Amino acid sequence: MGGPEVERLIALLAKLPGMGPRSARRAALRMLAEPQTRMLPLAAALTDAARTVSACNTCGNLDTRNPCMVCADNARDRGLVCVVETVSDLWALERTHTHHGLYHVLGATLSALGGVTPADIDLSLLLRRLDGTVREIILALPATVDGAATTHWLAEKLAPSGIAVTRLAHGVPIGGSLDILDDGTLATALRARRPVE
Amino acid sequence: MGGPEVERLIALLAKLPGMGPRSARRAALRMLAEPQTRMLPLAAALTDAARTVSACNTCGNLDTRNPCMVCADNARDRGLVCVVETVSDLWALERTHTHHGLYHVLGATLSALGGVTPADIDLSLLLRRLDGTVREIILALPATVDGAATTHWLAEKLAPSGIAVTRLAHGVPIGGSLDILDDGTLATALRARRPVE
Repeated sequence: MGGPEVERLIALLAKLPGMGPRSARRAALRMLAEPQTRMLPLAAALTDAARTVSACNTCGNLDTRNPCMVCADNARDRGLVCVVETVSDLWALERTHTHHGLYHVLGATLSALGGVTPADIDLSLLLRRLDGTVREIILALPATVDGAATTHWLAEKLAPSGIAVTRLAHGVPIGGSLDILDDGTLATALRARRPVE
Repeated sequence: MGGPEVERLIALLAKLPGMGPRSARRAALRMLAEPQTRMLPLAAALTDAARTVSACNTCGNLDTRNPCMVCADNARDRGLVCVVETVSDLWALERTHTHHGLYHVLGATLSALGGVTPADIDLSLLLRRLDGTVREIILALPATVDGAATTHWLAEKLAPSGIAVTRLAHGVPIGGSLDILDDGTLATALRARRPVE
């Protein structure tokens, strides 16, 4: 219904996380009722963001600046690097206003089921950052089996550097992903971080 | 986080039906990871749809053609007009392949709480279509208090025309809206339509 342009719009909207065919159709119809005030501004925002946002060469954060606003902020503690799986997790931690150091976006965790092995995770960018300034690495990976495996693997890899390696305190619910946690729980877990046993 | 372009994109995505601030953030981050393959095609689809789609001057359906593909289809029964609240409801009925007549999108129902009175609903377009060809009007409004009130009000308004006025059969769950119903229930309700008592 509505012609090929509408079918195509619905198909693309349905691919967004949290959307399905039904909600995509509702969203498309809602927007089509107000094309000038709803559709064209969203189209412009998508184009602007695609044009201006890139991954930070240092930490992997997504930002309009490169280095990103976290890496470029001289008030931040350069001795403290927090390793996260995704940019979404980085933003979740930033919202707690609890971590005043830098970040490193790993982009993946090891996964036996997903077939992600140590060979698939590039640590060269992270290891290159351990130039003597860094005194602690906080592993803020998901509290899943895969996240825990990755935490222990990274702790082993980082041990030769002599840098303290910590992880988020237990308190993160098992099976939960960081970016859907309430900020209070996330802040508590960050403050109570402990050395990797 | 991410700069003003990202904040703006998240704010616009969060306004889509079914999305909130968290899912909008996830959607934005997912798309930002693949700007060329995910963001720019969606931006183009939005712009295309906004440019090409308009409301049908006859029935109010949204389509790239005007009159819309339903109104322009000479194989459809011009003696049967189905009145719906929204374009979304029209599309839901089309998916059942049960109605072979035309439609009329009312755009609203009466609502005591919402302050929608008979004066707020323009019937002139609908009344102008009752030129002697139309032999039955099916009122396919939501099975809510407001929908039922609107059904009875319309049946009264249409009575002087002498045209048969029917409504969808009971079977539509009370409180439910048409476009989230399964197609089977919707088709059954359409087939078992009855005169307005």
